[in-house]
Amino acid sequence: MMMEESATLSGEERLIARYFRPLAKHPGAFRLVDDAAVLAPPAGCDLVLKTDGLIGGVHFFPDDPPDAVAKKALRVNLSDLAAKGSRPLGFLLALALPEKIGEAWLEPFARGLGEDADFFECPLLGGDTDRTPGPITISIAAFGAVRHGEMVRRAGAKLGDRVVVTGTIGDAALGLLLRRDPATPERWELNRRQQDHLKARYLLPEPRTTIAEALRTHATAAMDVSDGLAGDLAKLCRASGVAAEIDVASVPLSDAARAAHAKEPALIDTILTGGDDYEVLATLPAARVEAFRQATSAAGVLVTEIGKVIVGEGNARFLDQKGKPLAFAHPSFSHF
Amino acid sequence: MMMEESATLSGEERLIARYFRPLAKHPGAFRLVDDAAVLAPPAGCDLVLKTDGLIGGVHFFPDDPPDAVAKKALRVNLSDLAAKGSRPLGFLLALALPEKIGEAWLEPFARGLGEDADFFECPLLGGDTDRTPGPITISIAAFGAVRHGEMVRRAGAKLGDRVVVTGTIGDAALGLLLRRDPATPERWELNRRQQDHLKARYLLPEPRTTIAEALRTHATAAMDVSDGLAGDLAKLCRASGVAAEIDVASVPLSDAARAAHAKEPALIDTILTGGDDYEVLATLPAARVEAFRQATSAAGVLVTEIGKVIVGEGNARFLDQKGKPLAFAHPSFSHF
Repeated sequence: MMMEESATLSGEERLIARYFRPLAKHPGAFRLVDDAAVLAPPAGCDLVLKTDGLIGGVHFFPDDPPDAVAKKALRVNLSDLAAKGSRPLGFLLALALPEKIGEAWLEPFARGLGEDADFFECPLLGGDTDRTPGPITISIAAFGAVRHGEMVRRAGAKLGDRVVVTGTIGDAALGLLLRRDPATPERWELNRRQQDHLKARYLLPEPRTTIAEALRTHATAAMDVSDGLAGDLAKLCRASGVAAEIDVASVPLSDAARAAHAKEPALIDTILTGGDDYEVLATLPAARVEAFRQATSAAGVLVTEIGKVIVGEGNARFLDQKGKPLAFAHPSFSHF
Repeated sequence: MMMEESATLSGEERLIARYFRPLAKHPGAFRLVDDAAVLAPPAGCDLVLKTDGLIGGVHFFPDDPPDAVAKKALRVNLSDLAAKGSRPLGFLLALALPEKIGEAWLEPFARGLGEDADFFECPLLGGDTDRTPGPITISIAAFGAVRHGEMVRRAGAKLGDRVVVTGTIGDAALGLLLRRDPATPERWELNRRQQDHLKARYLLPEPRTTIAEALRTHATAAMDVSDGLAGDLAKLCRASGVAAEIDVASVPLSDAARAAHAKEPALIDTILTGGDDYEVLATLPAARVEAFRQATSAAGVLVTEIGKVIVGEGNARFLDQKGKPLAFAHPSFSHF
């Protein structure tokens, strides 16, 4: 090979230039031709930092559309940034790809990622690409801005606060069951639209970025629901040194989840503990609920009051219509 | 299972509490009991962001000591932060672990990571832990602080600038050959100390954190050498719109590398293109070399002038003692 070859691009540089440079619209990304990126939070703001990853065969199906996988990878992080009351500034992408992954996967992956980076105004700042003998592994670190000292914490729920959630709960966990077991749609008597709804909710979460400011203004504590409502509420309660009592009948369900639950009441366990909801769970003073609801409604997000904060040591009680607490097999999704 | 179970910790929470909470000494880490971390750069500073990862069987041997693996994972990022003229502030850790990884690996991994986090004053800010059907995958995003607008770029090398490198070049790449082929020590006639030196340089890089300020003060361009001196210098030249001419005889080699090279001259290719050096490559005006050398020497880091910046389009010419340019098989390490 000629010496002049040292002036040509490596395979990794070509890959980055072709697929990821177009996403690096932030000036601090230096068009991905430097080793690091530069970011300064807006005046008076802290940076909020979050990392969350997706692994093929663990967090998504190997045959999921690459653009949806890319969007989910970014959105699970955006969901956290929103729940913390911050607005997105940008992200780093660490990508480990099996040998067999080529342009047919990378092109739609980068396209989907770019669409969401534009939509959520969260540009690519930098990254790292490697080959792996394992499954596709996508690790994103996302950065948001929040007014100095005002990140919405898990710790902060106060006695008497109301517990609210956005959107509907359990859809993604039911969608995952549908994907895994083709017999479920018939057993649950779901029509095509209902099946599609649940599957779509698993495939692609909707981060509640539009209510970040309302959370920062009104919430005493908040987090996104990723490991199941029951377990995540327990985490919020533990961090806050309180307990919570939830009226199960008030937990917002989609039409599809309601239909499945009507046919198979035991699904309430999956609905409340399955995870992958990427809705926001928050507590706020009773007097703030109406103002919060108005703000979120203006942002196009449904918020439902589901219970209240009580004295306790981190436990979350989910009461059925007779006031009897539910017992869950696994209150929180956990990899370990 | 009793309802009160929802008040207990998940396996993931226990793992985090046991192994990683002790490392989360930054107040913005919230003892890892929140969903995100908070970081504000010091007044007048930008954040420098870097992500780099290690994959078992790709970047380290599965039987490497877990504490060394942890340290390498952090240090490859600290190396970039230093080369960019910034000082470390903290890092996020995304860890994907195979089923078989348990306490026997995690305990020393977390201990090693904690030792380096303390030593380099770079505390853990947050993270993500997952199970993977693939190899151990460690992805770190590290954050540094640099005076506003003063990150040392790849772009910036000027005609006539001198090219310098820290430490010695090629040790890690030779160490990797030693690990892979047990016949090499005999062929190269290396003694035990020389073998250990090369292997140690592969196992555990030494990020040049102590010269970050000197780089910011004197360098026109800099980057760390991770994919091989030849390829990385070409990248720096391309970003700067210049070329460079290097006197191969002046490239600093360790006693061990010199011995191996004497027995097998073709190893110059491995030395200059093998990568994993984690030394700093920089350009600076000729008039600054002496001041830079004094500053780095005070910081305990050897700096060697190896060539100069010339007119060209991104190529890096490595000239042998007869002034003839070397031809490399693969000028730069690339996964793709």
